[in-house]
Amino acid sequence: MTSDKVAMLAARYGDAAIPSAGPWNAVIASLMQHRSVRGFKPDALPSGTLETLIAAAQSAATSSNMQTWSVVSVTDPAKKATFARLSGNQKHIEQCPMYLVFLADLSRLERIGVAEGKTLEALPFLETFLVAAIDAALAAQNAVIAAESLGLSTVYIGAMRNDPETVARELDLPPGCMAAFGLCVGYALAGHESAVKPRLSQSAVLHHERYDARHDATARAAYDRAMAAFSAGHERQSYTWTERVIVRVGRLSALNGRDRLADALRRLGFPLK
Amino acid sequence: MTSDKVAMLAARYGDAAIPSAGPWNAVIASLMQHRSVRGFKPDALPSGTLETLIAAAQSAATSSNMQTWSVVSVTDPAKKATFARLSGNQKHIEQCPMYLVFLADLSRLERIGVAEGKTLEALPFLETFLVAAIDAALAAQNAVIAAESLGLSTVYIGAMRNDPETVARELDLPPGCMAAFGLCVGYALAGHESAVKPRLSQSAVLHHERYDARHDATARAAYDRAMAAFSAGHERQSYTWTERVIVRVGRLSALNGRDRLADALRRLGFPLK
Repeated sequence: MTSDKVAMLAARYGDAAIPSAGPWNAVIASLMQHRSVRGFKPDALPSGTLETLIAAAQSAATSSNMQTWSVVSVTDPAKKATFARLSGNQKHIEQCPMYLVFLADLSRLERIGVAEGKTLEALPFLETFLVAAIDAALAAQNAVIAAESLGLSTVYIGAMRNDPETVARELDLPPGCMAAFGLCVGYALAGHESAVKPRLSQSAVLHHERYDARHDATARAAYDRAMAAFSAGHERQSYTWTERVIVRVGRLSALNGRDRLADALRRLGFPLK
Repeated sequence: MTSDKVAMLAARYGDAAIPSAGPWNAVIASLMQHRSVRGFKPDALPSGTLETLIAAAQSAATSSNMQTWSVVSVTDPAKKATFARLSGNQKHIEQCPMYLVFLADLSRLERIGVAEGKTLEALPFLETFLVAAIDAALAAQNAVIAAESLGLSTVYIGAMRNDPETVARELDLPPGCMAAFGLCVGYALAGHESAVKPRLSQSAVLHHERYDARHDATARAAYDRAMAAFSAGHERQSYTWTERVIVRVGRLSALNGRDRLADALRRLGFPLK
């Protein structure tokens, strides 16, 4: 292993859980160094950056080439302020020069059905909504990789699902189209570059031939120590991963309205059959 | 623009719809050249490739750092044959040396709840399942980018959702864990390298400030011509995109059982409230 490779694996897994990784190159090094950034300079992006990111996004795989996603680029300050407020006052949405809202979009197929006089029987199913959400995620991740390769920073905004109906009205979304998540894109503000966050060891996440939770408790104990140390050094308070999991999924209130997502989706034109 | 950049954009969008993309580099060029491959050599992957791909995958963003995904690496020929059969006889699942099954996995959090004596109220909701599916997709896409950067080829297998309960039994998945999709990884077989597939023009997919379907019909007509030409040259029969959409989502039978996904998920421990 080169020292860079070892250092990058140590940053991601901690010194005690470095996996025996094999081939390595500059692309993989770039993926390994991802960190989410929550503070942006107001600086505009170079001309054509949006179109480059979308070309990368559209190059991702899409289920059966149905391309059931779209994206709205938001730069209007008032609109960004509205989305910041709707997402639990995440100021980085206002700060970033470009806010991309990735849409799970079955409306384009619905318009084809109308234009061609065909009933599209598969559209009302949970499966087809899931395809659209996964399509949007694959595309967005390509945009993130492209952005980071250009020295830009990003952060996903799942809180765009706190109130999907208001978001849909703000963006004039047609039925069969919903904001799956947002993505802030811009240059990291000094002091907000953040650090590579440790993850669970591969022994907890990677299984061979069959699922095997045998290493789960050991991996969690080690990861609790790693996250306590990381958060003490990089965040406002120290916490273990276990503590954070319980805060995040223990109480219904932590969903910030997203417990109503199924009903909201039905009203937005996804029957989820 | 460099000629490479123009050529890559032309391959992805056709000569008539080249977007005015800006910054460009080797990572973006690699993303642009993605193609799904459905024929693999039996050649084994270099030692440590799996761990490299998973390190890249775990470096993707994950909602609130909950890491609600896992992956099973399948190399056993009998198991790959079973998954090929369960996925509508997709022979490339048998052929590829490594078949990765990406899991939307809330079971790890459930085990924490049990171990800590806490009820995790947010787990039974559609929102939390969606987070897990999106987490799995972001991770998988990083694995794909890493694999392609190493000269490997991949194809996603959504048909792993045709019969999620049998797949869960084959992989010993605990409740709260489901196979979101598979991913074949290996070296492309000669003659199966495939070509960069054209996509819809950016005018159909990318919106500014608000959703605007005004360019939809024009973009679809142009894309129908592009896909007719592409499929005539690269596939067994020529078809327009509109024709393919109607085949793929027109009839319920094309879902191959995935119209029962919601019920299957409920039985697998996702109440989807």
